[in-house]
Amino acid sequence: MTTTASNTTAPTQLLRVKNATYAYRRFGGGPGLPLLCLQHFMGTLDNWDPAVTDPLASGREVILFDNAGIGKSTGEVPTTVAGMAAHALAFLDGLGSTRCDVLGFSLGGMVAQQMAQDRPAIFRRIILAGTAPRGGEDIMHLHKPSLARHLADPSLDGYARLAKLFFTSSPSSQAAGQAFVGRLERRKEDLDPVSGQAVAAAQIAAFREWERSSGAPFVDLRSIEQPALVVNGVHDEMIPISNSYRLVENLPNAVLLAYPDSGHGSLFQFHESFTRQASAFLGSDSPFAPY
Amino acid sequence: MTTTASNTTAPTQLLRVKNATYAYRRFGGGPGLPLLCLQHFMGTLDNWDPAVTDPLASGREVILFDNAGIGKSTGEVPTTVAGMAAHALAFLDGLGSTRCDVLGFSLGGMVAQQMAQDRPAIFRRIILAGTAPRGGEDIMHLHKPSLARHLADPSLDGYARLAKLFFTSSPSSQAAGQAFVGRLERRKEDLDPVSGQAVAAAQIAAFREWERSSGAPFVDLRSIEQPALVVNGVHDEMIPISNSYRLVENLPNAVLLAYPDSGHGSLFQFHESFTRQASAFLGSDSPFAPY
Repeated sequence: MTTTASNTTAPTQLLRVKNATYAYRRFGGGPGLPLLCLQHFMGTLDNWDPAVTDPLASGREVILFDNAGIGKSTGEVPTTVAGMAAHALAFLDGLGSTRCDVLGFSLGGMVAQQMAQDRPAIFRRIILAGTAPRGGEDIMHLHKPSLARHLADPSLDGYARLAKLFFTSSPSSQAAGQAFVGRLERRKEDLDPVSGQAVAAAQIAAFREWERSSGAPFVDLRSIEQPALVVNGVHDEMIPISNSYRLVENLPNAVLLAYPDSGHGSLFQFHESFTRQASAFLGSDSPFAPY
Repeated sequence: MTTTASNTTAPTQLLRVKNATYAYRRFGGGPGLPLLCLQHFMGTLDNWDPAVTDPLASGREVILFDNAGIGKSTGEVPTTVAGMAAHALAFLDGLGSTRCDVLGFSLGGMVAQQMAQDRPAIFRRIILAGTAPRGGEDIMHLHKPSLARHLADPSLDGYARLAKLFFTSSPSSQAAGQAFVGRLERRKEDLDPVSGQAVAAAQIAAFREWERSSGAPFVDLRSIEQPALVVNGVHDEMIPISNSYRLVENLPNAVLLAYPDSGHGSLFQFHESFTRQASAFLGSDSPFAPY
């Protein structure tokens, strides 16, 4: 049962299925289907910004999920997005959830796309933030100068580095980044273990595999018929916005919302707008994505 | 004074300034600044969809404007966007309007950009639908096959041709096109003269001039600091969506909203969503475009 409606205080729970144990948090409630939230590269339950999760939890239950090998979930981190999708589906099966909405951010957006293809009935509506289709370009190339300069900067610790990577260099974006870090730091107890280099290596392998297109590029997107909301910052250096352009040009039923002055973390920078738009999108019963 | 709040029934009015007379309609009211609406290639006051203008008129006065040489406005159609912008500014001066919001569709969106550069204080917020920046690509090339097949089809009359040009070939988009035509046809009296080949020739010349970039492409957009909402259909054949990508990548403060299954007339196809989004955008007092 939900004891609190914030990711600042929601307890981490464990679900045992077959040979695995998955860590998750669930909180909130309302008339909507549950919203499964799938996380970014190296991210844990603690990386979900309460300014994003908590307003969404006022209209539905929000379920945050640690994939295999992340946080307190057991097992090995898969080296393919398909492997991660299989774990996420096994988790939903273990919960007894046969249909939900999904918010996939970055790597989590790739996992959401794969799940929608592997089990089309599982999702009613799909939100894809800062992510890329299979066959996308320039996905998480951490050695390129715009990213490496932050990753190699010894003066940055974990959250400070995240503020550099997820936000642009503009004063307004960096201020939003500091506010984002402050919100993550509100949670003081029951924290996930921080992801290490083994997690990074497996997930980078998954990005490289995801960049390879089998056959005509983006054709596989046409089978994802659910209404989709695609969100991206126009200056995203981690997964450039061109990937979101390809998503909405090829998904048959997707709206694109692109934010200015922002990078990979545009949904955190403009959390008031994002949660308003996402709530309207999730609250719609139209067969069409526009809301 | 406003006698009705619909473009189906609002009377056409004439404003005399210096050497010109401009035709316009104004209707509606509310707390917002007036919304100046700038029209597309060959479009007159009668081409404004009441499903778009009327909901917007419930929160502010909507002002529809025939540029020089269009409808019942006197003078020659300028062969440059800058010439059209000068007329629109002269019209606002004649009305005594020193500050308003603007909705520029297609050619009208180019005029709005030029006005914002020529007189930065004139607009508070800017909506650019189905348009392109100076130096944009593939702007209204009517001889390309995807457009020429409709323009050369003798079985199509004016509004039926518009439904082919503004909407995609999908059944849902064509159905929306028929509904759009039906809404335009509701107005039976006090109609504008239909634009002819002289109008087309001058406006096409303006498109060709607008495609030419002087200096580094898109740099001029950085001076348009107002919050902007950019809207485009993902399958726009008249002014491809790549132009809207360039707009939001270079305007410092612009949100992009891209609609699926739709072409040049995406704002008419998804008029319920568009007017909801536009009303929220126009209703915001934030210095940032996200709403």
